[in-house]
Amino acid sequence: MTGNEGKVTLVSAGPGDLDLLTLKAAKVLASADVVLLDDLVNPEIVALAPQARVIRVGKRGGCRSTPQAFIERLMQRYARRGLHVVRAKGGDALLFGRAGEELAALRRAGVRVEIVNGVSSAFAAAAGLGVSLTHRDHCQGVIFVTAHLRDHSEPDWHALAATGMTLAIYMGMSRIESLCATLVSALPTTTPAAVVQWAGSANERRVTGTLGTIAAHARAAGLGSPAIILVGHAIGEAASFANSAASFGVHSHESSIEELRRRA
Amino acid sequence: MTGNEGKVTLVSAGPGDLDLLTLKAAKVLASADVVLLDDLVNPEIVALAPQARVIRVGKRGGCRSTPQAFIERLMQRYARRGLHVVRAKGGDALLFGRAGEELAALRRAGVRVEIVNGVSSAFAAAAGLGVSLTHRDHCQGVIFVTAHLRDHSEPDWHALAATGMTLAIYMGMSRIESLCATLVSALPTTTPAAVVQWAGSANERRVTGTLGTIAAHARAAGLGSPAIILVGHAIGEAASFANSAASFGVHSHESSIEELRRRA
Repeated sequence: MTGNEGKVTLVSAGPGDLDLLTLKAAKVLASADVVLLDDLVNPEIVALAPQARVIRVGKRGGCRSTPQAFIERLMQRYARRGLHVVRAKGGDALLFGRAGEELAALRRAGVRVEIVNGVSSAFAAAAGLGVSLTHRDHCQGVIFVTAHLRDHSEPDWHALAATGMTLAIYMGMSRIESLCATLVSALPTTTPAAVVQWAGSANERRVTGTLGTIAAHARAAGLGSPAIILVGHAIGEAASFANSAASFGVHSHESSIEELRRRA
Repeated sequence: MTGNEGKVTLVSAGPGDLDLLTLKAAKVLASADVVLLDDLVNPEIVALAPQARVIRVGKRGGCRSTPQAFIERLMQRYARRGLHVVRAKGGDALLFGRAGEELAALRRAGVRVEIVNGVSSAFAAAAGLGVSLTHRDHCQGVIFVTAHLRDHSEPDWHALAATGMTLAIYMGMSRIESLCATLVSALPTTTPAAVVQWAGSANERRVTGTLGTIAAHARAAGLGSPAIILVGHAIGEAASFANSAASFGVHSHESSIEELRRRA
């Protein structure tokens, strides 16, 4: 690469807490000329790229404030001017979030592209609950699935439930009731479940319950998007389940596992 | 927490490259009194905790050099002395790796425990291939599954294949042939597949192919554990698939997407 050859780096901005950025992401941001910022990225991330021009390109939950094609053209335009473009995406850039389309478009355009991994929000949700996603007493793995499909169809919830794996459902809050009702036709109503909103950020809030109760608990607590819905027996190991008094409460980010335990 | 109350922090050490640690992991390591180090963690991580006593507690691939119960007692003992114990685990601590058991043991013992997330190696594998795990033209999610089960049984590969999701298979290299043969009974032989060894580290090596060819390619290239096996049409978007000349070659970490593209 010559000195004036531009490039695009897809940077995983993690779940919100800037301390959950990787060292590599921080270094890349420090060398960015232009930063394209998604809605779900903590806006304070720009402090790590004070030298860069920042462009907000959010398109939250289907309301396309910035069309995808425009974002792709923008990245190509700046890279062709020899600039280092950082495309900051929430969570890990390679899980949902249309990185696949952006990588394909950049490759077609002959633009050099690099990727920096990060922490996806389901991992942060599990950390907040104090639970492994895959406790080996309970399952052999975890499924990360989006409930927000392009054609407004549904994932095959029966097939997913049949695997016996932990489910980590992204973008499911707008239809959590119907989603749980469908899962209940394949899994016991008593299957542990949790909802974690703004996982891994200062605003994190979470409720725990079962497939039969979690939708009502989440609504009662006022939890909405963005949130991760976790389902499965591995989730039943969460500290709050061991503490029946706290089981159906809302826990803020400040409630450490230890605090939950002490309250018991 | 009083000044002399100890605690354990489960720190996700990521896939190898120390730059893929989170800022939070680096801060926690800098405040550790004792670091318990797994085999799959880059040993150079100890440079981030020069003040700490380092104890290697690896138990690679079933040969139990340090029994799990001993590791759990070790953590408790040091925490009870008022020390800050960092348990460094490869990838993200909450995906495989027995964090569930360790969290339960620490909670039972009344030891305060915190969790720091990180990058799991399947994400690094996808980054090396230049591909999203969930390109929305191809799938609605990804399944992280371990092929190494406690009772030497097999995951239900048919049920996993039936979901239509990308498969990210951990710890499958010792039986990649039988694993692919089983998947071929549920998925087309032509389904794209890849193997990435030491993903996200300086030693990263990868091969691409199909369910029908990947086991032979991986063996021919001498790839073994630790490696991630990726299966699914989203993986077919990898840069190396667009380049038939390179499709069956071995790519080192140094082969950037751009270099692969140039060789075409």
